[in-house]
Amino acid sequence: MTHTSKFQTQKSQSPSYRDKFRAAVDTVRREGRYRIFRDIRRKKGAFPRATWFKDDLAEQDITVWCSNDYLGMGQNDCVVEAVKSAVDAAGTGSGGTRNISGTTRYHVQLEEELADLHGKNAALVFTSGYVANEAALSTMSKILPGLHILSDEMNHASMISGIRNARTHKHIFAHNDVADLEAKLKAIPLDAPKLIAFESVYSMDADIAPIEEICDLADKYNALTYIDEVHAVGMYGPRGGGVCEQRGLMDRVDIIQGTLAKAYGMIGGYIAADRVVVDAIRSLASGFIFTTSIPPSTAAGALRSVRILKITPEVRTQHQTQSNALKARFRAEGYPFIDGDTHIVPLMIGDPVKCQEISDRLIEDHGIYAQPINYPTVPRGTERLRFTPSPFHTEEMMDELMEALAQVWDAYELPRENVA
Amino acid sequence: MTHTSKFQTQKSQSPSYRDKFRAAVDTVRREGRYRIFRDIRRKKGAFPRATWFKDDLAEQDITVWCSNDYLGMGQNDCVVEAVKSAVDAAGTGSGGTRNISGTTRYHVQLEEELADLHGKNAALVFTSGYVANEAALSTMSKILPGLHILSDEMNHASMISGIRNARTHKHIFAHNDVADLEAKLKAIPLDAPKLIAFESVYSMDADIAPIEEICDLADKYNALTYIDEVHAVGMYGPRGGGVCEQRGLMDRVDIIQGTLAKAYGMIGGYIAADRVVVDAIRSLASGFIFTTSIPPSTAAGALRSVRILKITPEVRTQHQTQSNALKARFRAEGYPFIDGDTHIVPLMIGDPVKCQEISDRLIEDHGIYAQPINYPTVPRGTERLRFTPSPFHTEEMMDELMEALAQVWDAYELPRENVA
Repeated sequence: MTHTSKFQTQKSQSPSYRDKFRAAVDTVRREGRYRIFRDIRRKKGAFPRATWFKDDLAEQDITVWCSNDYLGMGQNDCVVEAVKSAVDAAGTGSGGTRNISGTTRYHVQLEEELADLHGKNAALVFTSGYVANEAALSTMSKILPGLHILSDEMNHASMISGIRNARTHKHIFAHNDVADLEAKLKAIPLDAPKLIAFESVYSMDADIAPIEEICDLADKYNALTYIDEVHAVGMYGPRGGGVCEQRGLMDRVDIIQGTLAKAYGMIGGYIAADRVVVDAIRSLASGFIFTTSIPPSTAAGALRSVRILKITPEVRTQHQTQSNALKARFRAEGYPFIDGDTHIVPLMIGDPVKCQEISDRLIEDHGIYAQPINYPTVPRGTERLRFTPSPFHTEEMMDELMEALAQVWDAYELPRENVA
Repeated sequence: MTHTSKFQTQKSQSPSYRDKFRAAVDTVRREGRYRIFRDIRRKKGAFPRATWFKDDLAEQDITVWCSNDYLGMGQNDCVVEAVKSAVDAAGTGSGGTRNISGTTRYHVQLEEELADLHGKNAALVFTSGYVANEAALSTMSKILPGLHILSDEMNHASMISGIRNARTHKHIFAHNDVADLEAKLKAIPLDAPKLIAFESVYSMDADIAPIEEICDLADKYNALTYIDEVHAVGMYGPRGGGVCEQRGLMDRVDIIQGTLAKAYGMIGGYIAADRVVVDAIRSLASGFIFTTSIPPSTAAGALRSVRILKITPEVRTQHQTQSNALKARFRAEGYPFIDGDTHIVPLMIGDPVKCQEISDRLIEDHGIYAQPINYPTVPRGTERLRFTPSPFHTEEMMDELMEALAQVWDAYELPRENVA
């Protein structure tokens, strides 16, 4: 008997595990969606400037055009100081689950702040937005036996995962299509518990859900509503409460889910809802109960960031201004981008290999970092580069980007649309 | 039509959602397992001392006896400085998924360090140990169609969740029972892919798996092995590589899973394995792909902590010394604790309400914080207080604990075992 891991020596026995793992990777590679993670280091104070470490660790200066630190709060001095002073006061990790010594003053204050942000009376912080969606949605069917979940077809992987793990009746409705949603609602018995799960800002297509119409249908058919605002919190609404706040709809949505990892510049996710909803999920969700809580300093940084963005609406204005400026330039050049109502600017390529190559050219030749977005993040055939201009992307950076894009676009003989 | 959340006004329509959420919480409450999170703040430099914030925010000094910051690395000055200097250099959040601008020098170096720690050629960091287990295990069945997973009955909730979500053949074997495991292995066709999933240190029962015997069976029946070492990494083995390192078995286990949130004093989890295994999971696991990576400073702090514990075996000795000292005292007093081979000291109460009350008495009257461990963390009827002495728990603190326990034990007329 050889005393080794199945991967230390190549066993002759079938099945050959190594072959199967290799085959799985080969499939990904063959489909042109093998991901090579760019090894970078952001420069605090100079964001979106960063250093790219190549394979040989040679360094190149780059401009990051694909970060979800949408407002640059990850380098905000007040946020940085909040993190550092919490580390000095309380140390690094929390040392436990929320129940076993991992609840601190920082966590409690953060949850109070998030509840207030969304006009709810309670909030619950998870280790990530992904976990928030997975844990909250998968737990719903335990609380509401026989639950029917109606899910927008473009919902994020974390919602899909939560709904799948809820193991209950599932209905996928066409993206942002209230007629289709109503048809599906109508087919479900009125007295059956129902939950409509959707997003406000769809990150990859840069569009926004018809939230009010969905809430009207929820009222008509007695359904709960669950909205993912991760690409909106901090960036929309007078206090950064998201699209629901901007449109005066926060009180009409039962459960608002958000993240601390994008506009707020930290990590972690949350839900805000009525206290009884939060209490039930808090008490039953495996992905909440059995995991170490976020570090005190993460909670402290997030708390600071939420408070800052509550009182600085001008950052939101600058953000939209920069995004609109980039869209105007893309429009003038006839680039095929999705011209939506949000801050996200997806430039369509439509081929995974080309998308990767163009991204490579941009960073290698021009120091411009825009990661290719391929399947499974977006459907096959809709591969794209996704630009996220922030208030810190200057006119000069935009000039650099436009020059680089023009060269690459011509080199690859990519189509332009009619220029107005 | 009322334009409100289902929880803003009590709707007359059936079903009453509020009632159902309330019923779910009431059930938890009735079973005596409603959790009230203690709101504390650890004191860096004075750990395990901390401040407890009561309901009225009155403060009380306490000693934490239930933290999983087993070695106090969460207040280690070198770790704290690594975190702070990374925040100064690179800002707070990473701003993206690993694929979309969220891979940094810190992440890459941390993964190299973890691979080295476990004698593997690759490692992959997740946002938590929970997510590492859930994502890795649930992805295995995608790579190995028809997979049979053999799971120890006492495995952690995160492994159970991952195995459940793998939606493949599942076999539960009796806890640490190699005869039962072999019987189950024998019943599966030899050429079917198999994975044995187990832990090294079982956190709640303080016992250790027969790792070598399990690996022998894995060889005999051609099964992969997956071990959760979250309660062992940093604490066992010459370099803190866990029980597998201590017993010279690292090369015999295919996938080693660990955490950065316990002995390493940070947050996050990981797997270490052959490069092709890591590459396949990296490429396919939803819970890895679609979530913001851990902050650069978290990776930097974890990297520092792993490196420190690699070269300071005396901390591990001190840890065991303190744990053995507490066990000797419990033994002398006849307290019914689980006298295992690990650093964890579970004191059995066997009733959820009593367990909570005793915990309340200890913290309120004596400033001693030991969280009650109730269902679903442990089986009903085995409720306990779980003590985790660290190198920073002094003799004086142990005196305080013993005095407090004696008073509470007598007040509740709890049984003592024969004192040797």
